[in-house]
Amino acid sequence: MSRFWSPLVHRLTPYVPGEQPKMADLIKLNTNESPYGPSPRALEAMKAAADDSMRLYPDPEATRLRTVLAERVGLKAENVFVGNGSDEVLAHAFQAFFAHGEPILFADVTYSFYKVYCGLYDLPYRLVPLNEEMGIEVADYAGPCSGVVLANPNAPTGIGLELNEVRRLLDMHPDRVVLVDEAYVDFGAESAVALVKDYPNLLVVQTFSKSRALAGARVGFAFAQPELIEGLTRVKDSFNSYPLDRIAQAGATAAVEDESWFLDSVQKVITTRKTLSAKLAALGFKVLPSQANFVYVHHADRDAAELAADLRERAIIVRHLRGVRTSSWLRITVGTDQQCEMLLSALRDILLRNR
Amino acid sequence: MSRFWSPLVHRLTPYVPGEQPKMADLIKLNTNESPYGPSPRALEAMKAAADDSMRLYPDPEATRLRTVLAERVGLKAENVFVGNGSDEVLAHAFQAFFAHGEPILFADVTYSFYKVYCGLYDLPYRLVPLNEEMGIEVADYAGPCSGVVLANPNAPTGIGLELNEVRRLLDMHPDRVVLVDEAYVDFGAESAVALVKDYPNLLVVQTFSKSRALAGARVGFAFAQPELIEGLTRVKDSFNSYPLDRIAQAGATAAVEDESWFLDSVQKVITTRKTLSAKLAALGFKVLPSQANFVYVHHADRDAAELAADLRERAIIVRHLRGVRTSSWLRITVGTDQQCEMLLSALRDILLRNR
Repeated sequence: MSRFWSPLVHRLTPYVPGEQPKMADLIKLNTNESPYGPSPRALEAMKAAADDSMRLYPDPEATRLRTVLAERVGLKAENVFVGNGSDEVLAHAFQAFFAHGEPILFADVTYSFYKVYCGLYDLPYRLVPLNEEMGIEVADYAGPCSGVVLANPNAPTGIGLELNEVRRLLDMHPDRVVLVDEAYVDFGAESAVALVKDYPNLLVVQTFSKSRALAGARVGFAFAQPELIEGLTRVKDSFNSYPLDRIAQAGATAAVEDESWFLDSVQKVITTRKTLSAKLAALGFKVLPSQANFVYVHHADRDAAELAADLRERAIIVRHLRGVRTSSWLRITVGTDQQCEMLLSALRDILLRNR
Repeated sequence: MSRFWSPLVHRLTPYVPGEQPKMADLIKLNTNESPYGPSPRALEAMKAAADDSMRLYPDPEATRLRTVLAERVGLKAENVFVGNGSDEVLAHAFQAFFAHGEPILFADVTYSFYKVYCGLYDLPYRLVPLNEEMGIEVADYAGPCSGVVLANPNAPTGIGLELNEVRRLLDMHPDRVVLVDEAYVDFGAESAVALVKDYPNLLVVQTFSKSRALAGARVGFAFAQPELIEGLTRVKDSFNSYPLDRIAQAGATAAVEDESWFLDSVQKVITTRKTLSAKLAALGFKVLPSQANFVYVHHADRDAAELAADLRERAIIVRHLRGVRTSSWLRITVGTDQQCEMLLSALRDILLRNR
């Protein structure tokens, strides 16, 4: 508390990101990073960009990056917005589109930053409960609202929503923005990007942090019709003209151009996820059907927080989230095959020992 | 206009940054970048950081960078905040400290982004006129306010305010934050960082974009007592946990550690500024006494916008700002000696031709 702070600052409950430990030799399965390095072409482009031109401001419009992102999905640069990580894109979207007096709708179990943005911009929201299988029920999203936010696939559950259901949501709220947060979509869910041409109320947000293994570069992006992109741009240009540095723009552009690296590394994650899910089930875990690069698991006989602590003692970090519906679950990033084997072996050990 | 936009978005008047032209072979004296490349050690550190660890999120607290920044000025990491360019730091500061119902005070001629932040966060402000010599009169900043923003040296004038005067301002408003924006301070003005220990209401904002020639890396920072740093951090952690990417953190850290490169390149700018100012005066320009890496000039007989256009035809870009008190002035970045000679020669030519 401080007399200098704006009243808002006292009320904020900031987001708490997953731990970024400074110790080496940890098996880090807590923040859904890719276990594989980024495209070598992206690394090369970043090294090349670290030259004397760093004295100059970057392109404030990131035109080249927006163009390659658009071309890959059959859209135009005017359909693309980029930001300093998808978190920044989401923040701008909350401010740009969701202040219509009515609550914003999102799931009770989803990315916990959504609530935080509501706090930052003083926006009311209503939590819509997931069903008993931890899935989204589109019918529950009817009624007046300032907008809808849908993580697809959802985090931390990993469960994806079919495109038909996304379309139902868009049809339900033609005058409100439906934000589909597709941070994990490349690992097997259906992207709503194909619907952008048909729906002026659709905003699709994606990131380079997961499937493109560039969490360290902070690049997020969004697809929409120009009307929504312009709304985001107006907010961005009232906040920070140059959110993406020269090296991040160069690396992200090269990463988009290396499609085969991308497909290969996504496929490896999907294959490992399948094996990991089956083996966790064999150990007695309930494993939700994941379309993301993590699995969400629950053990009927074990306290999830204790399991996480026991794993940590063995230098394996997974994510345990508090909350009524999440405290008995663990979210585990899909690592390499070897990392997953070490996780399984540690879990076997823990489950046997404390029997 | 759009039915999807929040009402705020319709009201915004976004900042318009100086042009970042894509043509080569221009003499670019319009956005106050350093004419010298960044420290070679910074470039090396950035290249080295572009490795497989880019798959991982950066340190959300940028601990190493904050530590070297603090040590350089005899403070602690808890006294330092870092952000994605000083524009982001400023934006967070406006939201964190200036919503107390009363207007924010800043000069009528100063960095034009301040007004834009007021629009973004719906904050009232009062413009305090510069005196006839385009200087700040501290006495004019008395009275109830939500805070004071002072660019020191001021932009676009380049005129610095003495530390005694900054202290008067701080004493005048003990319960309000006085934000001193020192983007250009390293080129000869007195930094208020020495006052941080004595004034809980002081926030000093600086940047790597000018004196450290890293505009392309987007790194800004602030010094203050922990109470203000915590306010900024609460806002930052409600907006974007990881504003500074791995490469920017590495490059900025190395840049701080290369003090001799820094001193050398700042000294070159100061020396060139002196010569440039004298030669512009000899051409009939009124040249304000600059403590920044630019000069602000006025010609009694010539239209400033036309001069800028004539220079542009000769592939030299300078900055002309609209506005009652600025439209007859040009802001010219101090380039290399060679660039300045080319500018002077072009101006001689233009002034003779249109006589």
